[in-house]
Amino acid sequence: MRTVTTVAELREVCDAARAHGRTVGFVPTMGYFHDGHRSLMRAARAENDLVVVSLFVNPTQFAPTEDLAAYPRDLEGDAAQAAAEGVDLLFVPQVAEVYLGDERTTVHVGGITEVLCGASRPGHFDGVTTVVTKLLSMVGACRAYFGRKDAQQLAVVRRMTRDLNLPVEVVGCPLVREIDGLAMSSRNAYLTDDDREGALVLCRSLFVLSEAVQRGERDCDRLRALLTDMLGTEPRIKVDYAAIVDAATLEPVGRLDRTDSSETLVALAAFVGRARLIDNVTISVSGEHATVDLGRTAVPAAEER
Amino acid sequence: MRTVTTVAELREVCDAARAHGRTVGFVPTMGYFHDGHRSLMRAARAENDLVVVSLFVNPTQFAPTEDLAAYPRDLEGDAAQAAAEGVDLLFVPQVAEVYLGDERTTVHVGGITEVLCGASRPGHFDGVTTVVTKLLSMVGACRAYFGRKDAQQLAVVRRMTRDLNLPVEVVGCPLVREIDGLAMSSRNAYLTDDDREGALVLCRSLFVLSEAVQRGERDCDRLRALLTDMLGTEPRIKVDYAAIVDAATLEPVGRLDRTDSSETLVALAAFVGRARLIDNVTISVSGEHATVDLGRTAVPAAEER
Repeated sequence: MRTVTTVAELREVCDAARAHGRTVGFVPTMGYFHDGHRSLMRAARAENDLVVVSLFVNPTQFAPTEDLAAYPRDLEGDAAQAAAEGVDLLFVPQVAEVYLGDERTTVHVGGITEVLCGASRPGHFDGVTTVVTKLLSMVGACRAYFGRKDAQQLAVVRRMTRDLNLPVEVVGCPLVREIDGLAMSSRNAYLTDDDREGALVLCRSLFVLSEAVQRGERDCDRLRALLTDMLGTEPRIKVDYAAIVDAATLEPVGRLDRTDSSETLVALAAFVGRARLIDNVTISVSGEHATVDLGRTAVPAAEER
Repeated sequence: MRTVTTVAELREVCDAARAHGRTVGFVPTMGYFHDGHRSLMRAARAENDLVVVSLFVNPTQFAPTEDLAAYPRDLEGDAAQAAAEGVDLLFVPQVAEVYLGDERTTVHVGGITEVLCGASRPGHFDGVTTVVTKLLSMVGACRAYFGRKDAQQLAVVRRMTRDLNLPVEVVGCPLVREIDGLAMSSRNAYLTDDDREGALVLCRSLFVLSEAVQRGERDCDRLRALLTDMLGTEPRIKVDYAAIVDAATLEPVGRLDRTDSSETLVALAAFVGRARLIDNVTISVSGEHATVDLGRTAVPAAEER
């Protein structure tokens, strides 16, 4: 695996690959890798000739009050993990390599960025869509891999690439859970043992909701009440939102068995200790049958091979 | 020359060219070609293996009060001219091919879009930057050609492609004038003979300013006064702006002989009859020497070959 820090080096490798008819798979990350990141790298490795991972804690997607400075970093460990996953090129730019400092251009997606996480993180998605456009342009990616844990980000990036005709296939990969169900996140590093116990109410309420759906519940008001009741039992968390929305438009949904057979996203966000955590499941209903995508549980490292 | 109407056909040809190591030159236009457009096609033809011209009157860059419906069109004549210039591919999409209708994504360049034409055409440049991003992505252009007549558009597109790291070289080509000096524009078709005579004050005032600069005038307040006085003598026009600004930042300039040796743009806009016309010259000063780029005068068709 080669590590590069400049756009020029990155371009040189990626342009040469594409000029030889090789496909380029790209995984944009903020580092501090966990099994979720590794699963994106594996998906990219399986489907592309050249696999590029960027590691860049993008300042423009953090509000001044947020955790930019504290965001966990471990470049050495990340590089070892990326190499172990067969990544070809790790792009680790300084901020000044990505932003000259006098930028005036923003890529803005309206509507679906103003709800859910966008409501409590104003400007966040403008930072995401602008830097993703930049990174996709630098890499010239054929496919880009995003985790479904960040369900709104995935919906926003899909919308953006479609609206701007960007020549890239956006691939959504399953959310990955710890053995106890907690959705993997670099921000889990912020949790004390007590926080972590409290945080489990997020996934547990989604599992309970999933069981209700499997028993036949299709009414979203009742499902929302179920979520709210269960989340309300845990004093160690402060709920930001608990929403049941269309997975693409992020508009509230009345029933899971809508006639258009669109996917429904059940998404949660809560403050736990110093962390703001998110979790979600996606539900598809076809006739009497409901499929709830809970993500997958990480295989412990020892059993992995 | 092949004419295509769908993004899929366009992509197929352009992707195949790039996959074979051929360069792709792109000229985005709104059609109704004049010698200015043809000069862009010639520049693209001289520098690239595949030359693509798009002909699309982009509705999102027109305000509701503007001339979208009236904008002059002549597809047959345009196709003949493009073919004569050696264009390989003419892309003529319907509006529904470019916009699905539920787009939520905008590419916005701040600051330099709010002055000059942006001040009197709010939203115009968002329409331009968004459609140019889309077209560049569809074509996968290596180089894109824009006329210096639209000096602000060129500055905005340059800024946008730099800020978003778009993998394209933006090439600015000289403004082209009629024999009598009028800057070529598809919108000149709106002018009556009397309008046209009045419109000549735009280029003539720039020529007078150029002479003053050649005689040594470097003070922009005096140059602005000269412009305003001369434009004021012509009752058939209504001046929108007469500005002397930095060619990249579009910020007002005090003297032409600035220490940073940046280019200065002298830009005019005026309403003449049914038309809104623009014109400009670019000035570089190096030591005692000033270079004024007045553009070039079109060679009449009979003498062209």
